[in-house]
Amino acid sequence: MVTLKQLAKELNVSISTVSKALNNSEEIGEETVRRVKELAALYNYKPNKVALSLKQNKTKTIGVIIPNILNHFLAKVLFGIEREATKLGYNIITCISNESLEKEKESLQILANGSVDGFILCVAEETQIKNEVDHFRRTISQGLPIVMFDRVAHDVMCDKVIVDDFDATYRATKGLLAENRKRIAFISNVDKLSVGKLRERGYAKAILENHDMELLHLSIKKKDDHQKKVKSFLKKNPEIDGVIAADSSSGIIAINAAINLGKKVPRDMSVIGFASKGDSYHAFPKLTTIRQHAKVIGANAAEMLIHRLQNMHLNEDVKTKIVKTSLIKTKSTL
Amino acid sequence: MVTLKQLAKELNVSISTVSKALNNSEEIGEETVRRVKELAALYNYKPNKVALSLKQNKTKTIGVIIPNILNHFLAKVLFGIEREATKLGYNIITCISNESLEKEKESLQILANGSVDGFILCVAEETQIKNEVDHFRRTISQGLPIVMFDRVAHDVMCDKVIVDDFDATYRATKGLLAENRKRIAFISNVDKLSVGKLRERGYAKAILENHDMELLHLSIKKKDDHQKKVKSFLKKNPEIDGVIAADSSSGIIAINAAINLGKKVPRDMSVIGFASKGDSYHAFPKLTTIRQHAKVIGANAAEMLIHRLQNMHLNEDVKTKIVKTSLIKTKSTL
Repeated sequence: MVTLKQLAKELNVSISTVSKALNNSEEIGEETVRRVKELAALYNYKPNKVALSLKQNKTKTIGVIIPNILNHFLAKVLFGIEREATKLGYNIITCISNESLEKEKESLQILANGSVDGFILCVAEETQIKNEVDHFRRTISQGLPIVMFDRVAHDVMCDKVIVDDFDATYRATKGLLAENRKRIAFISNVDKLSVGKLRERGYAKAILENHDMELLHLSIKKKDDHQKKVKSFLKKNPEIDGVIAADSSSGIIAINAAINLGKKVPRDMSVIGFASKGDSYHAFPKLTTIRQHAKVIGANAAEMLIHRLQNMHLNEDVKTKIVKTSLIKTKSTL
Repeated sequence: MVTLKQLAKELNVSISTVSKALNNSEEIGEETVRRVKELAALYNYKPNKVALSLKQNKTKTIGVIIPNILNHFLAKVLFGIEREATKLGYNIITCISNESLEKEKESLQILANGSVDGFILCVAEETQIKNEVDHFRRTISQGLPIVMFDRVAHDVMCDKVIVDDFDATYRATKGLLAENRKRIAFISNVDKLSVGKLRERGYAKAILENHDMELLHLSIKKKDDHQKKVKSFLKKNPEIDGVIAADSSSGIIAINAAINLGKKVPRDMSVIGFASKGDSYHAFPKLTTIRQHAKVIGANAAEMLIHRLQNMHLNEDVKTKIVKTSLIKTKSTL
């Protein structure tokens, strides 16, 4: 990669002369312009994009910071961001915070120094627990707008895209009640996340609206044998005739475990979960799922950020967009 | 974010004076150094990292380019890269090529301009089909080393980390033959990828080593109902007593479909697949899996690249590392 400096040295002129010649400045003589351009073409000289972007303050690149790449939902949001950004002529660069506040800060710093025009991010778990927001505010005040999705920092004034987690499980539970189910259990391995808590509250609200019904909650820990736990839970509580699963695996496992115990699904037990489309095929019958539209969330976030970047001068009010979940009914419910 | 220029303007001195003062140059008077430093501290001036890195030619950052973020194997490799790089004091930034040659080229360009010291990448499908390698060679000749993993370009001289896909299915099929299985089928939805082809060849070799056995292959297309296809395949071929699944879903679906058809697993049929640990729980009995050690692949790639970055002056020969798969036996095989 040849630099301006090397071109200047070889031609025995100043760097600024080379630069001006390449930009057809009238200050430079025709002959010099020709010599500079010929040599630049010979060496296939390309202006350094990063240096250029530092000058122009526009990179047409979006920084994305996600907490966990193994989470399929987050990977799908990233996919949605990427697709929409590409459509609108933007590139994306991604950093992974690995749920760490420190890494989140570092990622913001690395990318804020001229690599990107703005950010789309999902807040790291540690950041949520410690409730730190200064690094977000500092980034925004540097002129780099942020759009947060899914896990957001409510104290930061910025655009947001969120999911109706509470409503989703509330409506799903109501659906099972409408099937006349009497003993509906809630199974979750995401108790600790804000979204997991919202999902549990939605379930609890629907159940407790009925005076004769009680909550029944199975919490799966990371070290647990997911399969064994669910199976023995269903065995110990044979009266369970409905399951709301808060994560992407528990619903599938609940169907398979019930069948293994000799139950018929959905005759004896209905199951609703949060699985992705691909995973919903892992159970016979296929799992009725609450679809979060991860790609739509990503597309919305990209669209909001790019809109803001292209209208920075208008200083528009920040917005929060709610992407509604939908219930995809298959044969694991009546 | 205050710049050198703004500091210079406010102090009514030249930019170069500010820069020299901040670097304690002896050319600048003590009083000026003090004034510059005070104002810089007041405005919380930080030298622009990207500009600095352009100068110093070291970013301690690795660029990662992956073709598809929805592929769980690739996401896990990325996780492994990130963890190892962090341990060794490097950051990573990721671009997604979306299986497109054009996006792969663009990603290399965006990051090659001073943002990273080198690359770890998995070649996009389109790049493999068109067999284009110039953009890789150009990057390497610019002084930015590349480590390729999984899908690699054999014509490019660079470090590589690959999986023993052929051996993996060869040995798995041999395992089913040792169980005295007579009719072993191969189910795959990755026929088009190089790794899918290697896996099929491994299966075929093991089968054809027996004069009395024939190949039986079910190919799943993207638009197919995966569940229905597998179920009707098993129904039409009731003599199947063993299944080798080449992708992350077919093994799980084969177990569930067999049970749905009234078969006992593994008594009537053994199944081996490529699922991740989490997904292997989606079947009862749990799926016997060929584990690819995605995180180990990522860690190896990071380790190789960083070793090369830290020993550029030695100009060492390129290496290819093979990460062996292992067979995790559970109760879907005898």
